[in-house]
Amino acid sequence: MADAEIEVIRRQLASHPRPADLAERRWRLDALGQQYSLPPDVRVEKVSANGVAAEWTTTPQANPARVILFLHGGGYISGSLDSHRHMIAEAGRQAGARTLALDYRLAPEHPFPAALEDAMAGYRFLLAQGIAPAHVAMAGESAGGGCAVAALVALRDAGVALPGCLWCSSPWVDLAVSGGSIEAKAAVDPLLGKPYLLELAAAYLHGADPLTPLASPLHADLRGLPAMLIQVGSAETLLDDAVRLAGVAGGADVPVTLRIWPDMIHAWHLFYQQVAAGRRALVEVGAFIHAALG
Amino acid sequence: MADAEIEVIRRQLASHPRPADLAERRWRLDALGQQYSLPPDVRVEKVSANGVAAEWTTTPQANPARVILFLHGGGYISGSLDSHRHMIAEAGRQAGARTLALDYRLAPEHPFPAALEDAMAGYRFLLAQGIAPAHVAMAGESAGGGCAVAALVALRDAGVALPGCLWCSSPWVDLAVSGGSIEAKAAVDPLLGKPYLLELAAAYLHGADPLTPLASPLHADLRGLPAMLIQVGSAETLLDDAVRLAGVAGGADVPVTLRIWPDMIHAWHLFYQQVAAGRRALVEVGAFIHAALG
Repeated sequence: MADAEIEVIRRQLASHPRPADLAERRWRLDALGQQYSLPPDVRVEKVSANGVAAEWTTTPQANPARVILFLHGGGYISGSLDSHRHMIAEAGRQAGARTLALDYRLAPEHPFPAALEDAMAGYRFLLAQGIAPAHVAMAGESAGGGCAVAALVALRDAGVALPGCLWCSSPWVDLAVSGGSIEAKAAVDPLLGKPYLLELAAAYLHGADPLTPLASPLHADLRGLPAMLIQVGSAETLLDDAVRLAGVAGGADVPVTLRIWPDMIHAWHLFYQQVAAGRRALVEVGAFIHAALG
Repeated sequence: MADAEIEVIRRQLASHPRPADLAERRWRLDALGQQYSLPPDVRVEKVSANGVAAEWTTTPQANPARVILFLHGGGYISGSLDSHRHMIAEAGRQAGARTLALDYRLAPEHPFPAALEDAMAGYRFLLAQGIAPAHVAMAGESAGGGCAVAALVALRDAGVALPGCLWCSSPWVDLAVSGGSIEAKAAVDPLLGKPYLLELAAAYLHGADPLTPLASPLHADLRGLPAMLIQVGSAETLLDDAVRLAGVAGGADVPVTLRIWPDMIHAWHLFYQQVAAGRRALVEVGAFIHAALG
Protein backbone atom coordinates (compact mmCIF):
# COMPACT_ATOMS: atom_id res chain seq x y z
CA MET A 1 0.00 0.00 0.00
CA ALA A 2 1.64 3.20 -1.14
CA ASP A 3 2.12 6.18 1.16
CA ALA A 4 -0.63 8.66 0.21
CA GLU A 5 1.42 11.72 1.15
CA ILE A 6 4.38 10.82 -1.00
CA GLU A 7 1.95 10.17 -3.86
CA VAL A 8 0.92 13.83 -3.66
CA ILE A 9 4.59 14.81 -3.96
CA ARG A 10 5.00 12.47 -6.93
CA ARG A 11 2.12 14.18 -8.70
CA GLN A 12 3.58 17.60 -7.98
CA LEU A 13 6.95 16.54 -9.36
CA ALA A 14 5.36 15.00 -12.44
CA SER A 15 3.38 18.17 -13.17
CA HIS A 16 6.52 20.06 -14.19
CA PRO A 17 8.27 19.49 -17.51
CA ARG A 18 11.94 18.46 -17.27
CA PRO A 19 14.25 21.46 -16.87
CA ALA A 20 15.60 22.63 -20.22
CA ASP A 21 19.08 23.60 -19.06
CA LEU A 22 21.40 23.92 -16.10
CA ALA A 23 20.09 27.31 -15.05
CA GLU A 24 16.53 26.07 -14.98
CA ARG A 25 17.61 22.96 -13.09
CA ARG A 26 19.22 25.08 -10.39
CA TRP A 27 16.30 27.47 -10.25
CA ARG A 28 13.84 24.57 -9.93
CA LEU A 29 15.58 23.00 -6.93
CA ASP A 30 15.93 26.33 -5.17
CA ALA A 31 12.26 27.07 -5.79
CA LEU A 32 11.31 23.70 -4.34
CA GLY A 33 13.00 24.61 -1.09
CA GLN A 34 11.69 28.14 -1.03
CA GLN A 35 8.07 27.08 -1.32
CA TYR A 36 8.35 25.94 2.29
CA SER A 37 8.18 28.55 5.00
CA LEU A 38 10.84 28.66 7.66
CA PRO A 39 9.42 28.50 11.20
CA PRO A 40 9.70 31.93 12.83
CA ASP A 41 11.94 30.62 15.62
CA VAL A 42 14.75 29.66 13.22
CA ARG A 43 17.61 32.17 13.23
CA VAL A 44 19.67 32.29 10.03
CA GLU A 45 23.11 33.88 9.85
CA LYS A 46 25.39 34.05 6.82
CA VAL A 47 29.05 33.35 7.37
CA SER A 48 32.22 32.74 5.39
CA ALA A 49 33.54 29.36 6.53
CA ASN A 50 37.20 29.49 5.60
CA GLY A 51 36.20 31.18 2.36
CA VAL A 52 33.24 28.92 1.66
CA ALA A 53 29.87 30.68 1.63
CA ALA A 54 27.80 29.16 4.40
CA GLU A 55 25.05 29.82 6.87
CA TRP A 56 24.17 28.93 10.41
CA THR A 57 20.69 27.98 11.50
CA THR A 58 19.79 28.01 15.16
CA THR A 59 16.55 26.98 16.85
CA PRO A 60 15.63 27.41 20.53
CA GLN A 61 16.38 23.69 20.91
CA ALA A 62 20.02 24.02 19.83
CA ASN A 63 22.91 23.45 22.20
CA PRO A 64 25.39 25.97 20.74
CA ALA A 65 28.29 23.54 21.29
CA ARG A 66 26.74 20.92 18.96
CA VAL A 67 26.81 21.43 15.18
CA ILE A 68 25.54 19.57 12.12
CA LEU A 69 27.80 20.35 9.16
CA PHE A 70 25.57 19.86 6.12
CA LEU A 71 26.23 19.30 2.42
CA HIS A 72 23.09 19.67 0.33
CA GLY A 73 22.02 17.43 -2.53
CA GLY A 74 21.66 18.34 -6.17
CA GLY A 75 23.98 16.02 -8.06
CA TYR A 76 27.05 18.23 -7.61
CA ILE A 77 25.58 20.67 -10.16
CA SER A 78 22.63 22.22 -8.33
CA GLY A 79 21.25 22.84 -4.87
CA SER A 80 22.15 25.66 -2.52
CA LEU A 81 21.51 27.10 0.88
CA ASP A 82 18.05 28.11 -0.36
CA SER A 83 17.02 24.64 -1.52
CA HIS A 84 17.65 22.88 1.79
CA ARG A 85 17.38 25.54 4.50
CA HIS A 86 13.92 24.47 5.72
CA MET A 87 14.95 20.81 6.01
CA ILE A 88 18.31 21.20 7.69
CA ALA A 89 16.91 23.73 10.15
CA GLU A 90 14.37 21.11 11.24
CA ALA A 91 17.07 18.43 11.47
CA GLY A 92 19.01 20.78 13.74
CA ARG A 93 15.96 21.27 15.91
CA GLN A 94 15.47 17.51 16.27
CA ALA A 95 19.16 16.98 17.02
CA GLY A 96 19.39 19.85 19.49
CA ALA A 97 22.21 21.31 17.44
CA ARG A 98 23.06 24.34 15.39
CA THR A 99 23.59 23.66 11.70
CA LEU A 100 26.23 25.00 9.38
CA ALA A 101 25.22 24.46 5.75
CA LEU A 102 27.86 24.93 3.05
CA ASP A 103 27.24 26.57 -0.30
CA TYR A 104 30.03 24.48 -1.78
CA ARG A 105 31.23 25.12 -5.34
CA LEU A 106 29.27 23.33 -8.06
CA ALA A 107 30.16 21.55 -11.28
CA PRO A 108 30.54 21.90 -14.18
CA GLU A 109 32.13 25.28 -13.35
CA HIS A 110 33.99 23.70 -10.42
CA PRO A 111 34.48 19.96 -10.88
CA PHE A 112 35.94 17.36 -8.50
CA PRO A 113 37.58 17.94 -6.04
CA ALA A 114 36.12 21.43 -5.50
CA ALA A 115 33.11 20.27 -3.44
CA LEU A 116 35.35 17.98 -1.40
CA GLU A 117 37.81 20.78 -0.69
CA ASP A 118 35.00 23.05 0.43
CA ALA A 119 33.60 20.37 2.73
CA MET A 120 37.02 19.94 4.34
CA ALA A 121 37.43 23.71 4.67
CA GLY A 122 34.03 23.95 6.34
CA TYR A 123 34.96 21.29 8.87
CA ARG A 124 38.27 22.95 9.67
CA PHE A 125 36.36 26.22 10.13
CA LEU A 126 34.21 24.59 12.82
CA LEU A 127 37.25 23.30 14.66
CA ALA A 128 38.85 26.74 14.46
CA GLN A 129 35.69 28.14 16.06
CA GLY A 130 36.40 25.94 19.07
CA ILE A 131 33.78 23.28 18.33
CA ALA A 132 35.02 19.90 19.58
CA PRO A 133 35.28 17.27 16.80
CA ALA A 134 33.19 14.87 18.90
CA HIS A 135 30.40 17.48 18.96
CA VAL A 136 30.11 17.71 15.19
CA ALA A 137 27.75 15.60 13.12
CA MET A 138 28.89 15.46 9.50
CA ALA A 139 25.90 15.23 7.19
CA GLY A 140 24.93 15.19 3.57
CA GLU A 141 22.11 14.34 1.22
CA SER A 142 22.50 12.57 -2.12
CA ALA A 143 25.68 13.93 -3.76
CA GLY A 144 26.28 15.78 -0.50
CA GLY A 145 26.13 12.44 1.32
CA GLY A 146 28.82 10.99 -0.89
CA CYS A 147 30.89 14.14 -0.49
CA ALA A 148 30.49 13.93 3.30
CA VAL A 149 31.86 10.38 3.35
CA ALA A 150 34.72 11.37 1.05
CA ALA A 151 35.54 14.41 3.19
CA LEU A 152 35.90 12.22 6.29
CA VAL A 153 38.22 9.87 4.42
CA ALA A 154 40.36 12.80 3.29
CA LEU A 155 40.35 14.40 6.74
CA ARG A 156 41.34 11.10 8.35
CA ASP A 157 44.21 10.75 5.90
CA ALA A 158 45.25 14.32 6.71
CA GLY A 159 45.42 13.44 10.39
CA VAL A 160 42.50 15.67 11.40
CA ALA A 161 40.32 14.53 14.34
CA LEU A 162 37.04 13.21 12.92
CA PRO A 163 33.51 14.28 13.88
CA GLY A 164 31.36 12.33 16.32
CA CYS A 165 29.04 10.85 13.73
CA LEU A 166 27.92 10.91 10.11
CA TRP A 167 24.39 11.12 8.75
CA CYS A 168 23.74 10.40 5.07
CA SER A 169 20.30 10.59 3.52
CA SER A 170 19.89 8.96 0.09
CA PRO A 171 23.67 9.05 -0.43
CA TRP A 172 25.22 8.86 -3.90
CA VAL A 173 28.55 7.09 -3.45
CA ASP A 174 29.07 5.33 -6.79
CA LEU A 175 29.66 7.67 -9.72
CA ALA A 176 30.03 4.63 -11.98
CA VAL A 177 26.24 4.25 -11.49
CA SER A 178 26.51 0.48 -11.22
CA GLY A 179 24.02 -0.51 -8.50
CA GLY A 180 21.37 -3.11 -9.29
CA SER A 181 18.63 -0.74 -8.17
CA ILE A 182 19.56 1.70 -10.95
CA GLU A 183 17.54 -0.52 -13.28
CA ALA A 184 15.31 -2.28 -10.74
CA LYS A 185 13.91 0.99 -9.35
CA ALA A 186 13.95 3.04 -12.56
CA ALA A 187 10.20 2.74 -12.98
CA VAL A 188 9.35 4.00 -9.50
CA ASP A 189 12.00 6.72 -8.98
CA PRO A 190 10.52 10.06 -10.09
CA LEU A 191 13.83 11.95 -9.91
CA LEU A 192 16.93 9.97 -10.84
CA GLY A 193 17.45 7.71 -13.84
CA LYS A 194 20.67 6.29 -15.18
CA PRO A 195 21.20 8.75 -18.07
CA TYR A 196 20.79 11.72 -15.75
CA LEU A 197 23.09 10.22 -13.10
CA LEU A 198 25.75 9.59 -15.75
CA GLU A 199 25.41 13.18 -16.93
CA LEU A 200 25.86 14.44 -13.37
CA ALA A 201 28.83 12.14 -12.79
CA ALA A 202 30.51 13.37 -15.97
CA ALA A 203 30.02 17.00 -14.95
CA TYR A 204 31.58 16.44 -11.53
CA LEU A 205 34.33 14.01 -12.57
CA HIS A 206 35.48 16.16 -15.50
CA GLY A 207 37.49 13.24 -16.84
CA ALA A 208 38.49 11.66 -13.52
CA ASP A 209 37.98 7.91 -13.12
CA PRO A 210 34.52 7.19 -11.65
CA LEU A 211 36.18 4.69 -9.32
CA THR A 212 38.31 7.42 -7.70
CA PRO A 213 37.74 6.78 -3.98
CA LEU A 214 37.30 10.45 -3.07
CA ALA A 215 34.70 10.88 -5.81
CA SER A 216 33.02 7.48 -5.29
CA PRO A 217 33.63 6.70 -1.62
CA LEU A 218 32.06 3.28 -2.06
CA HIS A 219 35.56 2.43 -3.22
CA ALA A 220 37.37 4.16 -0.34
CA ASP A 221 38.89 2.55 2.73
CA LEU A 222 36.38 3.66 5.39
CA ARG A 223 38.28 2.39 8.41
CA GLY A 224 38.16 4.76 11.37
CA LEU A 225 35.07 6.67 10.30
CA PRO A 226 32.56 7.44 13.07
CA ALA A 227 29.12 5.92 13.63
CA MET A 228 27.05 6.30 10.49
CA LEU A 229 23.29 6.60 9.96
CA ILE A 230 22.29 5.90 6.36
CA GLN A 231 18.68 6.57 5.37
CA VAL A 232 17.23 5.69 2.00
CA GLY A 233 13.83 5.22 0.41
CA SER A 234 12.74 1.98 -1.21
CA ALA A 235 11.63 3.88 -4.33
CA GLU A 236 15.08 5.10 -5.24
CA THR A 237 17.46 4.11 -8.01
CA LEU A 238 20.15 4.88 -5.42
CA LEU A 239 18.85 2.25 -2.95
CA ASP A 240 21.84 0.03 -3.64
CA ASP A 241 24.27 2.91 -3.10
CA ALA A 242 22.98 3.08 0.47
CA VAL A 243 22.97 -0.69 0.97
CA ARG A 244 26.46 -1.12 -0.46
CA LEU A 245 27.80 1.81 1.57
CA ALA A 246 26.44 0.11 4.69
CA GLY A 247 28.23 -3.10 3.76
CA VAL A 248 31.55 -1.44 2.97
CA ALA A 249 31.48 0.78 6.05
CA GLY A 250 30.36 -2.04 8.34
CA GLY A 251 32.98 -4.33 6.89
CA ALA A 252 35.57 -1.69 7.82
CA ASP A 253 34.39 -1.82 11.44
CA VAL A 254 32.38 1.39 11.29
CA PRO A 255 29.24 1.23 13.47
CA VAL A 256 26.46 1.34 10.86
CA THR A 257 22.73 1.89 11.02
CA LEU A 258 20.98 1.50 7.68
CA ARG A 259 17.31 2.43 7.58
CA ILE A 260 15.27 1.67 4.47
CA TRP A 261 11.98 3.55 4.33
CA PRO A 262 9.20 1.90 2.30
CA ASP A 263 7.74 3.93 -0.58
CA MET A 264 9.95 6.92 0.07
CA ILE A 265 11.55 8.71 -2.86
CA HIS A 266 14.97 10.28 -3.18
CA ALA A 267 15.65 12.94 -0.53
CA TRP A 268 12.12 12.74 0.89
CA HIS A 269 13.15 14.68 3.98
CA LEU A 270 12.78 17.81 1.84
CA PHE A 271 9.01 17.26 1.86
CA TYR A 272 8.72 16.81 5.61
CA GLN A 273 6.10 19.55 5.96
CA GLN A 274 3.73 17.48 3.80
CA VAL A 275 4.95 13.93 4.45
CA ALA A 276 4.84 12.34 7.91
CA ALA A 277 7.56 9.85 6.96
CA GLY A 278 9.83 12.83 6.31
CA ARG A 279 9.13 14.15 9.80
CA ARG A 280 9.72 10.71 11.30
CA ALA A 281 13.00 10.41 9.39
CA LEU A 282 14.13 13.72 10.89
CA VAL A 283 13.13 12.54 14.37
CA GLU A 284 15.29 9.48 13.75
CA VAL A 285 18.18 11.72 12.71
CA GLY A 286 17.76 13.74 15.87
CA ALA A 287 17.82 10.65 18.10
CA PHE A 288 20.88 9.30 16.30
CA ILE A 289 22.82 12.56 16.63
CA HIS A 290 21.79 13.04 20.25
CA ALA A 291 22.99 9.53 21.08
CA ALA A 292 26.25 9.92 19.14
CA LEU A 293 27.27 13.40 20.27
CA GLY A 294 26.08 13.07 23.87
CA MET B 1 40.82 -1.01 18.36
CA ALA B 2 39.32 -4.40 19.05
CA ASP B 3 36.67 -4.97 21.70
CA ALA B 4 38.54 -6.47 24.69
CA GLU B 5 35.55 -8.48 25.89
CA ILE B 6 34.98 -10.23 22.59
CA GLU B 7 38.72 -11.01 22.49
CA VAL B 8 38.26 -13.03 25.69
CA ILE B 9 35.47 -14.97 23.97
CA ARG B 10 37.69 -15.54 20.94
CA ARG B 11 40.37 -17.02 23.14
CA GLN B 12 37.85 -19.28 24.87
CA LEU B 13 36.55 -20.50 21.51
CA ALA B 14 40.07 -21.08 20.21
CA SER B 15 41.02 -23.10 23.29
CA HIS B 16 38.78 -26.00 22.22
CA PRO B 17 39.72 -28.38 19.42
CA ARG B 18 37.21 -28.63 16.56
CA PRO B 19 34.38 -31.06 17.34
CA ALA B 20 35.11 -34.52 15.97
CA ASP B 21 31.58 -35.43 14.94
CA LEU B 22 27.96 -34.33 14.92
CA ALA B 23 27.24 -35.52 18.46
CA GLU B 24 30.17 -33.55 19.83
CA ARG B 25 29.14 -30.50 17.81
CA ARG B 26 25.68 -30.58 19.35
CA TRP B 27 27.03 -31.22 22.82
CA ARG B 28 29.49 -28.34 22.50
CA LEU B 29 26.84 -25.77 21.58
CA ASP B 30 24.51 -26.92 24.34
CA ALA B 31 27.37 -26.75 26.84
CA LEU B 32 28.15 -23.21 25.70
CA GLY B 33 24.64 -22.12 26.60
CA GLN B 34 24.52 -24.05 29.83
CA GLN B 35 27.67 -22.47 31.22
CA TYR B 36 25.58 -19.34 31.73
CA SER B 37 23.26 -19.21 34.72
CA LEU B 38 19.65 -18.28 34.20
CA PRO B 39 18.56 -15.36 36.39
CA PRO B 40 16.31 -16.64 39.19
CA ASP B 41 13.36 -14.54 38.07
CA VAL B 42 13.06 -16.36 34.71
CA ARG B 43 10.22 -18.88 34.66
CA VAL B 44 10.66 -21.74 32.17
CA GLU B 45 7.79 -23.97 31.07
CA LYS B 46 7.96 -26.82 28.56
CA VAL B 47 5.12 -27.05 26.05
CA SER B 48 4.22 -28.92 22.90
CA ALA B 49 3.56 -26.28 20.26
CA ASN B 50 1.40 -28.10 17.72
CA GLY B 51 3.61 -31.13 18.17
CA VAL B 52 6.89 -29.19 18.19
CA ALA B 53 8.85 -29.42 21.43
CA ALA B 54 9.11 -25.88 22.80
CA GLU B 55 9.38 -23.83 25.93
CA TRP B 56 8.11 -20.57 27.29
CA THR B 57 10.28 -18.16 29.23
CA THR B 58 8.68 -15.44 31.30
CA THR B 59 10.31 -12.63 33.26
CA PRO B 60 8.59 -10.17 35.58
CA GLN B 61 8.92 -7.63 32.75
CA ALA B 62 6.81 -9.65 30.32
CA ASN B 63 3.43 -8.53 29.10
CA PRO B 64 1.76 -11.95 28.70
CA ALA B 65 0.02 -10.82 25.51
CA ARG B 66 3.36 -10.17 23.73
CA VAL B 67 5.48 -13.08 22.51
CA ILE B 68 8.83 -13.53 20.79
CA LEU B 69 8.79 -16.73 18.75
CA PHE B 70 12.43 -17.80 18.57
CA LEU B 71 14.39 -20.12 16.29
CA HIS B 72 17.86 -20.84 17.62
CA GLY B 73 21.06 -20.96 15.59
CA GLY B 74 23.30 -23.93 14.98
CA GLY B 75 23.46 -24.34 11.21
CA TYR B 76 20.28 -26.43 11.00
CA ILE B 77 22.20 -29.38 12.53
CA SER B 78 22.78 -28.28 16.13
CA GLY B 79 21.47 -25.95 18.81
CA SER B 80 18.53 -26.53 21.10
CA LEU B 81 16.48 -25.01 23.86
CA ASP B 82 19.48 -25.48 26.16
CA SER B 83 21.97 -23.63 23.97
CA HIS B 84 19.99 -20.40 23.73
CA ARG B 85 17.73 -20.28 26.81
CA HIS B 86 19.81 -17.69 28.67
CA MET B 87 19.98 -15.36 25.69
CA ILE B 88 16.37 -15.47 24.56
CA ALA B 89 15.13 -15.09 28.14
CA GLU B 90 17.09 -11.85 28.35
CA ALA B 91 15.76 -10.69 24.97
CA GLY B 92 12.25 -11.31 26.29
CA ARG B 93 13.00 -9.23 29.37
CA GLN B 94 14.27 -6.35 27.25
CA ALA B 95 11.27 -6.57 24.94
CA GLY B 96 8.72 -6.89 27.76
CA ALA B 97 7.47 -10.11 26.16
CA ARG B 98 7.22 -13.80 26.88
CA THR B 99 9.31 -15.98 24.61
CA LEU B 100 8.42 -19.25 22.95
CA ALA B 101 11.55 -21.04 21.74
CA LEU B 102 11.15 -23.96 19.36
CA ASP B 103 13.18 -27.16 19.50
CA TYR B 104 12.66 -27.58 15.77
CA ARG B 105 13.80 -30.76 14.03
CA LEU B 106 17.42 -30.82 12.92
CA ALA B 107 19.28 -32.07 9.86
CA PRO B 108 20.66 -34.40 8.71
CA GLU B 109 18.01 -36.58 10.35
CA HIS B 110 15.32 -34.09 9.31
CA PRO B 111 16.36 -32.02 6.30
CA PHE B 112 14.58 -29.10 4.59
CA PRO B 113 11.72 -28.32 4.97
CA ALA B 114 11.40 -29.86 8.46
CA ALA B 115 12.69 -26.79 10.35
CA LEU B 116 10.49 -24.54 8.24
CA GLU B 117 7.40 -26.67 8.91
CA ASP B 118 8.11 -26.61 12.64
CA ALA B 119 8.51 -22.82 12.59
CA MET B 120 5.15 -22.47 10.86
CA ALA B 121 3.52 -24.92 13.31
CA GLY B 122 4.92 -22.92 16.23
CA TYR B 123 3.46 -19.70 14.87
CA ARG B 124 0.06 -21.26 14.30
CA PHE B 125 0.20 -22.58 17.86
CA LEU B 126 0.60 -19.02 19.16
CA LEU B 127 -2.37 -17.82 17.14
CA ALA B 128 -4.42 -20.76 18.43
CA GLN B 129 -3.53 -19.66 21.96
CA GLY B 130 -5.24 -16.35 21.24
CA ILE B 131 -2.09 -14.28 20.74
CA ALA B 132 -2.75 -11.53 18.20
CA PRO B 133 -0.46 -11.72 15.14
CA ALA B 134 0.47 -8.07 15.64
CA HIS B 135 1.70 -8.95 19.15
CA VAL B 136 4.17 -11.57 17.97
CA ALA B 137 7.80 -10.84 17.16
CA MET B 138 9.23 -13.53 14.90
CA ALA B 139 12.90 -14.05 15.64
CA GLY B 140 15.86 -16.18 14.75
CA GLU B 141 19.62 -16.37 14.96
CA SER B 142 21.92 -17.57 12.18
CA ALA B 143 20.19 -20.53 10.49
CA GLY B 144 17.19 -19.74 12.68
CA GLY B 145 17.17 -16.23 11.24
CA GLY B 146 17.01 -17.55 7.71
CA CYS B 147 14.31 -20.00 8.74
CA ALA B 148 12.33 -17.18 10.37
CA VAL B 149 12.36 -15.15 7.15
CA ALA B 150 11.37 -18.23 5.13
CA ALA B 151 8.57 -19.07 7.55
CA LEU B 152 7.05 -15.62 7.10
CA VAL B 153 7.20 -15.99 3.33
CA ALA B 154 5.46 -19.37 3.53
CA LEU B 155 2.87 -18.11 6.02
CA ARG B 156 2.15 -15.08 3.83
CA ASP B 157 1.66 -17.37 0.84
CA ALA B 158 -0.65 -19.54 2.96
CA GLY B 159 -2.78 -16.50 3.74
CA VAL B 160 -1.94 -16.44 7.44
CA ALA B 161 -1.81 -13.04 9.19
CA LEU B 162 1.84 -12.14 9.74
CA PRO B 163 3.50 -11.15 13.02
CA GLY B 164 4.16 -7.54 14.03
CA CYS B 165 7.89 -7.62 13.39
CA LEU B 166 10.90 -9.79 12.66
CA TRP B 167 14.27 -9.78 14.42
CA CYS B 168 17.21 -11.60 12.83
CA SER B 169 20.63 -11.76 14.46
CA SER B 170 23.52 -12.87 12.23
CA PRO B 171 21.06 -14.41 9.75
CA TRP B 172 22.12 -17.07 7.27
CA VAL B 173 19.93 -16.57 4.21
CA ASP B 174 22.12 -17.81 1.35
CA LEU B 175 22.79 -21.55 1.39
CA ALA B 176 24.81 -21.12 -1.80
CA VAL B 177 27.39 -19.42 0.47
CA SER B 178 28.14 -16.78 -2.15
CA GLY B 179 28.60 -13.53 -0.19
CA GLY B 180 31.79 -11.54 -0.65
CA SER B 181 32.39 -11.56 3.10
CA ILE B 182 32.71 -15.36 3.06
CA GLU B 183 36.27 -14.84 1.84
CA ALA B 184 36.85 -11.28 3.06
CA LYS B 185 36.07 -12.12 6.68
CA ALA B 186 37.40 -15.68 6.77
CA ALA B 187 40.49 -14.66 8.69
CA VAL B 188 38.57 -12.89 11.47
CA ASP B 189 35.53 -15.16 11.91
CA PRO B 190 36.30 -17.71 14.63
CA LEU B 191 33.22 -19.84 13.94
CA LEU B 192 32.11 -20.06 10.32
CA GLY B 193 34.24 -20.72 7.26
CA LYS B 194 33.14 -21.64 3.75
CA PRO B 195 33.81 -25.40 3.96
CA TYR B 196 31.80 -25.71 7.15
CA LEU B 197 28.93 -23.59 5.80
CA LEU B 198 28.79 -25.74 2.66
CA GLU B 199 28.71 -28.87 4.82
CA LEU B 200 25.81 -27.44 6.85
CA ALA B 201 23.98 -26.39 3.70
CA ALA B 202 24.34 -29.87 2.21
CA ALA B 203 22.99 -31.47 5.39
CA TYR B 204 19.92 -29.24 5.42
CA LEU B 205 19.26 -29.12 1.68
CA HIS B 206 19.59 -32.89 1.23
CA GLY B 207 19.82 -32.43 -2.50
CA ALA B 208 17.52 -29.44 -2.86
CA ASP B 209 18.74 -26.48 -4.93
CA PRO B 210 20.58 -23.97 -2.70
CA LEU B 211 18.68 -21.21 -4.47
CA THR B 212 15.32 -22.59 -3.29
CA PRO B 213 13.63 -19.47 -1.88
CA LEU B 214 12.30 -21.18 1.25
CA ALA B 215 15.76 -22.55 2.06
CA SER B 216 17.69 -19.43 0.98
CA PRO B 217 15.21 -16.60 1.55
CA LEU B 218 17.65 -14.11 0.03
CA HIS B 219 16.05 -15.38 -3.17
CA ALA B 220 12.45 -15.12 -1.95
CA ASP B 221 9.92 -12.41 -2.72
CA LEU B 222 9.79 -10.61 0.64
CA ARG B 223 6.90 -8.28 -0.18
CA GLY B 224 4.48 -7.84 2.71
CA LEU B 225 6.84 -8.92 5.46
CA PRO B 226 6.73 -6.82 8.65
CA ALA B 227 9.35 -4.39 9.96
CA MET B 228 12.68 -6.15 10.21
CA LEU B 229 15.66 -5.61 12.51
CA ILE B 230 18.82 -7.27 11.21
CA GLN B 231 21.86 -7.31 13.49
CA VAL B 232 25.25 -8.56 12.41
CA GLY B 233 28.86 -8.31 13.54
CA SER B 234 31.62 -6.91 11.36
CA ALA B 235 33.80 -9.98 12.07
CA GLU B 236 31.45 -12.46 10.41
CA THR B 237 31.71 -14.36 7.16
CA LEU B 238 27.92 -13.93 7.07
CA LEU B 239 28.14 -10.11 7.09
CA ASP B 240 27.05 -9.98 3.47
CA ASP B 241 24.08 -12.26 4.15
CA ALA B 242 22.78 -9.58 6.49
CA VAL B 243 23.59 -6.69 4.14
CA ARG B 244 22.05 -8.42 1.13
CA LEU B 245 18.96 -9.40 3.10
CA ALA B 246 18.54 -5.74 4.05
CA GLY B 247 18.75 -4.75 0.40
CA VAL B 248 16.33 -7.39 -0.83
CA ALA B 249 13.82 -6.77 1.96
CA GLY B 250 14.08 -2.99 1.66
CA GLY B 251 13.72 -3.21 -2.10
CA ALA B 252 10.48 -5.13 -1.51
CA ASP B 253 9.16 -2.23 0.59
CA VAL B 254 9.77 -3.90 3.94
CA PRO B 255 10.76 -1.38 6.63
CA VAL B 256 14.35 -2.38 7.36
CA THR B 257 16.82 -1.54 10.09
CA LEU B 258 20.27 -3.03 9.56
CA ARG B 259 22.74 -2.61 12.40
CA ILE B 260 26.37 -3.61 11.89
CA TRP B 261 28.30 -4.00 15.14
CA PRO B 262 32.07 -3.43 14.91
CA ASP B 263 34.30 -6.31 16.01
CA MET B 264 31.40 -8.53 16.95
CA ILE B 265 31.51 -12.20 15.99
CA HIS B 266 28.74 -14.49 14.83
CA ALA B 267 25.82 -14.70 17.29
CA TRP B 268 27.59 -12.55 19.90
CA HIS B 269 24.35 -12.06 21.83
CA LEU B 270 25.02 -15.51 23.31
CA PHE B 271 27.92 -14.00 25.26
CA TYR B 272 25.96 -11.07 26.64
CA GLN B 273 26.84 -11.90 30.26
CA GLN B 274 30.52 -11.25 29.44
CA VAL B 275 30.27 -8.79 26.54
CA ALA B 276 28.70 -5.35 26.92
CA ALA B 277 28.03 -5.14 23.17
CA GLY B 278 25.89 -8.26 23.57
CA ARG B 279 23.87 -6.56 26.28
CA ARG B 280 23.55 -3.41 24.17
CA ALA B 281 22.40 -5.48 21.20
CA LEU B 282 19.67 -7.03 23.35
CA VAL B 283 18.61 -3.58 24.57
CA GLU B 284 18.32 -2.59 20.91
CA VAL B 285 16.19 -5.66 20.24
CA GLY B 286 13.95 -4.75 23.15
CA ALA B 287 13.46 -1.19 21.91
CA PHE B 288 12.73 -2.42 18.39
CA ILE B 289 10.14 -4.95 19.53
CA HIS B 290 8.53 -2.52 21.95
CA ALA B 291 8.18 0.04 19.16
CA ALA B 292 6.88 -2.50 16.65
CA LEU B 293 4.40 -4.38 18.83
CA GLY B 294 3.21 -1.37 20.80
